Amino acid sequence: MSLDQNWFTEQASATDCAFSLHIKKKLHEEETPFQKIAIYETTEFGNLMTLDELIMLTDRDNFIYHEMMSHPVLFMHPNPLKIVIIGGGDCGTLHEVLKHTTIEKVIEVEIDERVTRLSEQYFPSLCESNNDPRAEFCFQDGIDWMATAEENSIDVIIVDSTDPLGPGEGLFTVEFYRDCWRVLTPEGLLVQQSESPLLHLSLLQSIHYGMRQAGFKTTRSLQFPQCVYPSGWWTATIAGNGDLTQFREEAARNKSFKTRYYNPEIQKASFALPNLLLEGLPD
Amino acid sequence: MSLDQNWFTEQASATDCAFSLHIKKKLHEEETPFQKIAIYETTEFGNLMTLDELIMLTDRDNFIYHEMMSHPVLFMHPNPLKIVIIGGGDCGTLHEVLKHTTIEKVIEVEIDERVTRLSEQYFPSLCESNNDPRAEFCFQDGIDWMATAEENSIDVIIVDSTDPLGPGEGLFTVEFYRDCWRVLTPEGLLVQQSESPLLHLSLLQSIHYGMRQAGFKTTRSLQFPQCVYPSGWWTATIAGNGDLTQFREEAARNKSFKTRYYNPEIQKASFALPNLLLEGLPD
Repeated sequence: MSLDQNWFTEQASATDCAFSLHIKKKLHEEETPFQKIAIYETTEFGNLMTLDELIMLTDRDNFIYHEMMSHPVLFMHPNPLKIVIIGGGDCGTLHEVLKHTTIEKVIEVEIDERVTRLSEQYFPSLCESNNDPRAEFCFQDGIDWMATAEENSIDVIIVDSTDPLGPGEGLFTVEFYRDCWRVLTPEGLLVQQSESPLLHLSLLQSIHYGMRQAGFKTTRSLQFPQCVYPSGWWTATIAGNGDLTQFREEAARNKSFKTRYYNPEIQKASFALPNLLLEGLPD
Repeated sequence: MSLDQNWFTEQASATDCAFSLHIKKKLHEEETPFQKIAIYETTEFGNLMTLDELIMLTDRDNFIYHEMMSHPVLFMHPNPLKIVIIGGGDCGTLHEVLKHTTIEKVIEVEIDERVTRLSEQYFPSLCESNNDPRAEFCFQDGIDWMATAEENSIDVIIVDSTDPLGPGEGLFTVEFYRDCWRVLTPEGLLVQQSESPLLHLSLLQSIHYGMRQAGFKTTRSLQFPQCVYPSGWWTATIAGNGDLTQFREEAARNKSFKTRYYNPEIQKASFALPNLLLEGLPD
């Protein structure tokens, strides 16, 4: 079969597979100084946001990505107080991070303010915490923010970026990781979305090696399903200076908030890697 | 963007998402008494087989499905000697099962012999064990085979079927599960592919309840990524009469064959279910 014009299709770059969603109507479209943003209403996945024709999120499945980008790393840090999110302008990760009541401050650094303003309009449930007094918004380039941030000042950096193309490209470099390393406290942790194990293994490898070259002593990837991203199988990679196998399991088990994907067993399970990754990634 | 005629697109039924692969050429197409089989050469996923316009497998990612349909259940059984595969005419599951040298006999029951003959031609690596003296082929309806099989005669039944539509429909019924229960030994295990947690949760629930209604005392689902199936996130559900949390970990760690996805840590991790499944499935 072929799909008519009522479908939005994203062709995964260089891998010749594609994912499509059936569209009821286009709700919004604009060109910002950084990218083209479009919002659609789909038939079965709720609202959809695309940036430069790439699917960013839908109402139906974004919970997996946002939970897995935030809770594992936050429960791995012994006492996370000050967090920075680079990218993540849809505010879904911010919303998850702020569920941790012990966190004192979250700086949300998004290059394109329009992503956040449109999310407030079309993905209101993700933006419910935007007025939390612990949240601070900086609409500027995350690379610049990190280059000028105070050293030894942040507990956890979450890089919730687009693919390493366009605005997101500089977030996958040794230079950026070096700034993150400098800005983090000695116990600090960096987590970055790190693409598909099936489609982007060499990129995943270069993320690990880049983080280590920048100064981090240990790196570890976790995996989770993500239906609307190429191959439906996604990773996040965590970098730190110590043992990355421990987490505050008791706190995770007694957390005061609800999750739909994450739980402490999932935290442990997500780090169990298939042989193709064990063989392809550094120990 | 829209895709031209050089793409094969499968629209997931009722869920209004679609997955597409870029096609170099169609290698074969035929109508059998059971279904329409087509084989394509893709640009990046190797060969592709479709049945009634639904993607069955590609060279690139079938290893995940075949390994996860066979090794977890085989290492959970204390001493599997006699195995039946219902469906699975591409022989990828058979190939994985026969890697277990302690297994004495595997009966491959496929309704459509043409699926197997075409797999021998277009997916030769999956069919490398077809001449193993322990393999026996029965080209007949798996429902009929199970209804007339000797009771208490099989250690593990693997239902490697299409979706519960067309030829596969009767494999998702209490009547079929009751026959499986009768044919299995008391320690016997049944495993069935059980669709996507994100798209088919109610079907997954009905599989659990159906298996229990048929006599099985315990059921448990495991999850794995499967890029070319709807949502890219898939499950298998195991039914038995005892504790389904144990497996022969030492044997799995010392297995004599290579796998690309499966390992003992993955075995444990695959049963860690996200909250949406913990809340939706029976204990």
